[in-house]
Amino acid sequence: MDGRTYRASLDDGRKVYVDGAVIGNVGTDPHFAINVRRASATYDLFARDSAARDAFMTPPTGVESLRQRSDSHVDELASMTYTTMMTLLTAADRIAKVRPQAREAVDHFVGDLKTRDARITECITDAKGDRAKPPAQQPDKDAYLRVVGRRDGGVIIRGAKLHVSMAAIGHELMVIPTKAMKPDEPEYAIACAVPVNAPGVSIVSVHNGRMPEDADARDFPHSSQHALPQGFVIFDDVFVPEERIFLDGETGMSAAFAHSLGLWVRAAHLNHVCDDLDTITGFAQLIAEANGTDRIGHIKDKIANMAITATLVRATLEASIAHATAIHGGIMVPDEVFTNAGKYHAAASYASLVRDLLDIAGGSAVTAPSARDLENAEIGPLVRKYMATKPGIEGEYRLRLFRAIHDLTASAYGGHRHVALLQSGGGLYAQSIVTRGRYDMDRAKRLALESFGWESGAADACPRNETAPIPA
Amino acid sequence: MDGRTYRASLDDGRKVYVDGAVIGNVGTDPHFAINVRRASATYDLFARDSAARDAFMTPPTGVESLRQRSDSHVDELASMTYTTMMTLLTAADRIAKVRPQAREAVDHFVGDLKTRDARITECITDAKGDRAKPPAQQPDKDAYLRVVGRRDGGVIIRGAKLHVSMAAIGHELMVIPTKAMKPDEPEYAIACAVPVNAPGVSIVSVHNGRMPEDADARDFPHSSQHALPQGFVIFDDVFVPEERIFLDGETGMSAAFAHSLGLWVRAAHLNHVCDDLDTITGFAQLIAEANGTDRIGHIKDKIANMAITATLVRATLEASIAHATAIHGGIMVPDEVFTNAGKYHAAASYASLVRDLLDIAGGSAVTAPSARDLENAEIGPLVRKYMATKPGIEGEYRLRLFRAIHDLTASAYGGHRHVALLQSGGGLYAQSIVTRGRYDMDRAKRLALESFGWESGAADACPRNETAPIPA
Amino acid sequence: MDGRTYRASLDDGRKVYVDGAVIGNVGTDPHFAINVRRASATYDLFARDSAARDAFMTPPTGVESLRQRSDSHVDELASMTYTTMMTLLTAADRIAKVRPQAREAVDHFVGDLKTRDARITECITDAKGDRAKPPAQQPDKDAYLRVVGRRDGGVIIRGAKLHVSMAAIGHELMVIPTKAMKPDEPEYAIACAVPVNAPGVSIVSVHNGRMPEDADARDFPHSSQHALPQGFVIFDDVFVPEERIFLDGETGMSAAFAHSLGLWVRAAHLNHVCDDLDTITGFAQLIAEANGTDRIGHIKDKIANMAITATLVRATLEASIAHATAIHGGIMVPDEVFTNAGKYHAAASYASLVRDLLDIAGGSAVTAPSARDLENAEIGPLVRKYMATKPGIEGEYRLRLFRAIHDLTASAYGGHRHVALLQSGGGLYAQSIVTRGRYDMDRAKRLALESFGWESGAADACPRNETAPIPA
Amino acid sequence: MDGRTYRASLDDGRKVYVDGAVIGNVGTDPHFAINVRRASATYDLFARDSAARDAFMTPPTGVESLRQRSDSHVDELASMTYTTMMTLLTAADRIAKVRPQAREAVDHFVGDLKTRDARITECITDAKGDRAKPPAQQPDKDAYLRVVGRRDGGVIIRGAKLHVSMAAIGHELMVIPTKAMKPDEPEYAIACAVPVNAPGVSIVSVHNGRMPEDADARDFPHSSQHALPQGFVIFDDVFVPEERIFLDGETGMSAAFAHSLGLWVRAAHLNHVCDDLDTITGFAQLIAEANGTDRIGHIKDKIANMAITATLVRATLEASIAHATAIHGGIMVPDEVFTNAGKYHAAASYASLVRDLLDIAGGSAVTAPSARDLENAEIGPLVRKYMATKPGIEGEYRLRLFRAIHDLTASAYGGHRHVALLQSGGGLYAQSIVTRGRYDMDRAKRLALESFGWESGAADACPRNETAPIPA
Repeated sequence: MDGRTYRASLDDGRKVYVDGAVIGNVGTDPHFAINVRRASATYDLFARDSAARDAFMTPPTGVESLRQRSDSHVDELASMTYTTMMTLLTAADRIAKVRPQAREAVDHFVGDLKTRDARITECITDAKGDRAKPPAQQPDKDAYLRVVGRRDGGVIIRGAKLHVSMAAIGHELMVIPTKAMKPDEPEYAIACAVPVNAPGVSIVSVHNGRMPEDADARDFPHSSQHALPQGFVIFDDVFVPEERIFLDGETGMSAAFAHSLGLWVRAAHLNHVCDDLDTITGFAQLIAEANGTDRIGHIKDKIANMAITATLVRATLEASIAHATAIHGGIMVPDEVFTNAGKYHAAASYASLVRDLLDIAGGSAVTAPSARDLENAEIGPLVRKYMATKPGIEGEYRLRLFRAIHDLTASAYGGHRHVALLQSGGGLYAQSIVTRGRYDMDRAKRLALESFGWESGAADACPRNETAPIPA
Repeated sequence: MDGRTYRASLDDGRKVYVDGAVIGNVGTDPHFAINVRRASATYDLFARDSAARDAFMTPPTGVESLRQRSDSHVDELASMTYTTMMTLLTAADRIAKVRPQAREAVDHFVGDLKTRDARITECITDAKGDRAKPPAQQPDKDAYLRVVGRRDGGVIIRGAKLHVSMAAIGHELMVIPTKAMKPDEPEYAIACAVPVNAPGVSIVSVHNGRMPEDADARDFPHSSQHALPQGFVIFDDVFVPEERIFLDGETGMSAAFAHSLGLWVRAAHLNHVCDDLDTITGFAQLIAEANGTDRIGHIKDKIANMAITATLVRATLEASIAHATAIHGGIMVPDEVFTNAGKYHAAASYASLVRDLLDIAGGSAVTAPSARDLENAEIGPLVRKYMATKPGIEGEYRLRLFRAIHDLTASAYGGHRHVALLQSGGGLYAQSIVTRGRYDMDRAKRLALESFGWESGAADACPRNETAPIPA
Repeated sequence: MDGRTYRASLDDGRKVYVDGAVIGNVGTDPHFAINVRRASATYDLFARDSAARDAFMTPPTGVESLRQRSDSHVDELASMTYTTMMTLLTAADRIAKVRPQAREAVDHFVGDLKTRDARITECITDAKGDRAKPPAQQPDKDAYLRVVGRRDGGVIIRGAKLHVSMAAIGHELMVIPTKAMKPDEPEYAIACAVPVNAPGVSIVSVHNGRMPEDADARDFPHSSQHALPQGFVIFDDVFVPEERIFLDGETGMSAAFAHSLGLWVRAAHLNHVCDDLDTITGFAQLIAEANGTDRIGHIKDKIANMAITATLVRATLEASIAHATAIHGGIMVPDEVFTNAGKYHAAASYASLVRDLLDIAGGSAVTAPSARDLENAEIGPLVRKYMATKPGIEGEYRLRLFRAIHDLTASAYGGHRHVALLQSGGGLYAQSIVTRGRYDMDRAKRLALESFGWESGAADACPRNETAPIPA
Repeated sequence: MDGRTYRASLDDGRKVYVDGAVIGNVGTDPHFAINVRRASATYDLFARDSAARDAFMTPPTGVESLRQRSDSHVDELASMTYTTMMTLLTAADRIAKVRPQAREAVDHFVGDLKTRDARITECITDAKGDRAKPPAQQPDKDAYLRVVGRRDGGVIIRGAKLHVSMAAIGHELMVIPTKAMKPDEPEYAIACAVPVNAPGVSIVSVHNGRMPEDADARDFPHSSQHALPQGFVIFDDVFVPEERIFLDGETGMSAAFAHSLGLWVRAAHLNHVCDDLDTITGFAQLIAEANGTDRIGHIKDKIANMAITATLVRATLEASIAHATAIHGGIMVPDEVFTNAGKYHAAASYASLVRDLLDIAGGSAVTAPSARDLENAEIGPLVRKYMATKPGIEGEYRLRLFRAIHDLTASAYGGHRHVALLQSGGGLYAQSIVTRGRYDMDRAKRLALESFGWESGAADACPRNETAPIPA
């Protein structure tokens, strides 16, 4: 497939809504233009260079290839297709123990996906209803997606999946349980693949974070190039044939997919976020230089703190790679404790970094005139004059720096980025829990006990034992 | 004046630009619609109830009236007119010592302003050029607004004033020095009043923070009601007649206006920000209840922290009122150290509070469907179904809660609010400096010395010599 | 009583242990010397000036008297006696509803206490055993103090009370439940007064935080004057006569004492901690001036942050007084939400303030030579020479400043202070909970709803149904 | 040398003072007992196993040997001797360019040191006088150590060096400039080696952080095993022969030693601090388990935060090793930006971690009875009874846990540790500066510029250039 055939493939009868209106063809609808353009570019790139495609779709099998793997040349939909496939392959290994046919189903589906050169997105988060109650005790049983019926050769599912990035412009939806299900919740233990245009599937696409309709792209240099439409995906009694089912009632394995996804998603995000934090730090230094404040003590201190935060997060990426472990097939998986600690620290610190950048930039981060003001014959020269600060810092350069900072951190796009960073990989709390879970607490406790000499003859005196923990 | 005559008064030949285009009549132009509507409503209110107008324009002369004074019933332009008048009156007292005619000029101007029922905005921040250099050493001498010529009965000024909220919809501009000027910078020590439509004045109005053009007001419940257009105001050789000049060359007093303004602005902002922090905390509690997570430990802890921050800031407001002091005419001014510490803490903490709110809300803060989706016959009922969580929490209520949270904290409006909070009153650093300056450090040092008995008869035991080791 | 008779009164057969050894007479034992000396001084003061005593022991009945009340002239034991009496009187009001005789018992006991001019300390925290289990389900039923038997005219109690400051040098012990007890735990709902020398009472006194035995008082200027011995008080089948019992089985009222105590203790501590934070800030400024670093940017910024923290906490004190409410008898009680938010912020921030002070001071905070080194004829002059920094800052002054900072923040005394601040009033978490509980969340929710127009006539547009979406 | 001969070697006429008194023989004086015992043990170990000694004294030449290098089996004095030797060798390379004879002098001195099996400590920090002034403008010229005279074959130095850990129990002192000196300060550009017992050398040894004299070692399990005496070292006209001089007047190279030392010291400290943070985290988990609070939400969250901090810091260690670079002789030096960011974060966060540990532990961190109380026949059993919490958690175990936590974080030793962590490697600010200096800011700026498309044809348009940074 190339960009052109990709765009054509989207006109397949899928039901997509934006602001209450049905979208005729997402391939040509302006709401999706940025993402379709980006996805097409990757298709074109891979069409020209199949080796690049194969390299991208091949998982790393060594520390060095893990370190060098990069997705900076592909669009977000292609990246997501990669993590989704990795998730399915990783999970299949575990599922196979209780559902032998899952391995074959996954292999077949992934092979088919590659053959068709299709794109797939991840449907994980359920509507959830009352969060204080488990699926089976919800007022509305459909609050978690479930099997509501069976018929020859397949099952019928009902429910909604939220926060599905780019759902409307992919070809397939990977549907997996959002969490571990209990033995009495078998109908909720369902994982499968569903075509976007399957009967009963509706996607309500939400487009917050986009640049203003009437704005000039030069004033929104990030949001004119990047967007992340979010699908509220409704499965209203959708039939799924047997060969597309990867889990069906095996509650003990219901968390396997979410766990595998978490692994791949957080590692991918950590990679990006390292550059994001460096970018924010770079903007702080650039605008300080442009303002002539880069030698002022408190400005330098704030930038130093930003650099320290960026360095701490990057250190976790480096450490997660240095301590990567191989899973089946020799695929290298970054170390989880470092990955999660880094992801957590980045997400938790981001708001403060943005505050520091906006503090350093000054009010012009929201009050700087626009590119079109510059073009006005009367006021353009005056805006340039007053936005300039010194030789080498022309008005237009500084103005565009402000607009870029505004778009990255104080626009609708900036707000969207913040939420995405907080919530990707499951929210701050999830990342905190995983870090604690993966942290080597036994070693920490041992270090503590040894530090005051408790180890002397107390090997079996662990305080958790039943016997007295008192040494002789 | 009432709303109608106010709107008509704006069609006075003023030169206003938005995105490079000249605005014919700001009174009817859609970019200014929200603010003109709000300003008109205040005019109508005061036209109906002149007692309310008089009460609003009268400064408090006792602790109790200071505590009860509120501007919640008037629009931002009227509030700003009040702080501007107070600034002029407060500063005039000090200026009069070196420029006797300033008292009369201010009194006359303020009286005229009241008579005309006009609105005035504050022009303080200069373009500043290279921040590492003082005004007189800038590559472009106009980087700070200055007197470039004199003519019979007045002066000619040139320069730009930035971040002038609502400049385009008021009638007058108060022009004051941004900071203390040195003896060799007399041309920069200029304070005066300039009509918005004076020849040579151009306003480039910037409208970040506005809701998307094509959006439904229900989805942007804050930004459809609130906006804060920012004027980049250019004074290109503007003549100012003598009677409108309040300072002209008296460099020793050049900071008097900025200091007076800081006083009134920070106190006004602290008042608002207390409610803002409570509002953010209230949203966190509401969305937690709507999600069914309000009894989860880490959610409760985060909300408790938000409540503690909001309480600390409100405590500074209470303390600043309890320790208010009277200036000339018995006008009560809130205590500065409490005001600044509170303003600083609010601005510095805001990003973290927003992070916590977004963390608690979950991804739907950016992915929730729109009001128009609810109206669609096919998907509307399904969106309602899946957004509902339990009896009492209907889908529409929760959806609108998400949209409100989004608009307040993650939209363009949210980004604008963040910058406004950080930069109002001069930026975090300015507030930190003022707090340190007003903090009773002598008492703190005395407490420290006394804590280890340095004072109690130890003078002879510990020779501190002729020079005191504790400078003022 | 005066100091002499007070000291004599301590030789009453009480059983006190330090480091495994029985103390013959706490009035003369060196472990208690600092506190006995301080307590004696207050006795002497009050003996000379009975008006001062009466004033101190009288609760404030107006905002102004609340603001001016101070205990800076009395010792810690007298202060504690005051809070204990207030606790009893406040709680008696509530208890009387279910236990009419409690009012009389309290009145009689407090009257007797005043007549005897005796001192009383607070026994509240139980041993607690496994914190995951309630009293009645503990492996050892005595983990919470309880009634183990009854006899004519009284009860027999057993258990231990921890963290009882100065238990060994008072005359009475106020024993109250540590928390609310359940209906099936009546034997734990016991409050009473017990003489320190009652048969069955043993006090294991712990003296961390004291200055080194062999040190010079000049090198430990705080810990040579202040100490806070902590009693581990064991009640091993102690008989309590009826007239000294204030609660006995009325589980519904078991938290009344702890709540009353919390009120008085936190308010008292907030008062002290405001000065503590100012003192820390003052030391930072003094040592920066002594080092010649007080004009360096990052030093000034750190001190500004300390001043801001101190100001925020002081603001809560001011606000708690401005919003004080009267309880029975017109006694003024500071507002709880401000008190707790301030106490929390102080305790939570203290470690960072200490870090900043130590960071500003430099390594000499632990490496500065001693007062005795100064007296050595050979090295004394050299130490002075190298500790001096500039005219007005002599070596001895700076050295003593370092020793004072060391003693306040990095000695055993400093560590004790930190724990005391964290744990007084129930620990950080308890203060956070109380703040959340007292915070006006209903108002915050209302502000949030109104901010997006949910209330203004939108009731019909947005069906909220029979059940309100906003539970109390 | 073995332990016995080491101790004997200390009786060499050195002039050491403690609390104003001259110490006859530091090898047998109780003030130094802990450190002399530890140093002797290393001597004994190396005497038995010369291969271990050689391995320890050999620098790593590969990433793997760098990762595995450990000094956990040697005492602090031996570790410091290693970093000092590495510092001299590293610096000599750079110095040789301007002072060719320095290479030989260093090689000869280091060889001699090894032959004699001697120990050396680092004298770097000067008295500094008024920190606002450079050395040459101090009121007292000796505020920085300097050459005050010359005589045949050597120089005479005068000044003081502060914070010299274990100065009194080593054999040699490495004297190096504390910072870069200016061209007009040649007499301050002096680096040399001085025997501890050289005429004119006096050491005032300060022993804060030691356990109480009369305490039981079991109650102070850390400070009974660890101590860090700090020397205030005075050089009162000390002659240094030519062959022991490494720098003399070459001001351009005066910072080379301090920089080399910083490198080795911070890397060594980062290694230790990773384990320290894990230890603190382990104690938090142990005491939570012992208290029965390890399943409470806010306790788990606090411990998770501690684990995240410990993981972030460890990540910097891992990353600094993964990115180590080889200097002369193939010696591997850890990457500086990661090392400094980690060191900074550990030092800056330590106070909060300690606060969290003490918060989790509860008041018993300062009020727990002593080991000797346990031995008392009457109260020992009762203390055990009330300190126990549940099966498996005996009273003695929990009591000792409290005492260990107390000693590590709230005793004089704990305070000493805190200051040492903050100040080692030059204080927080120094580490922040080095991180900012080593951070790849150019890359960060490039990322920022590229993020908004500025790179398009703007290769030479870097805002720092003189020419206009505006793309076509």
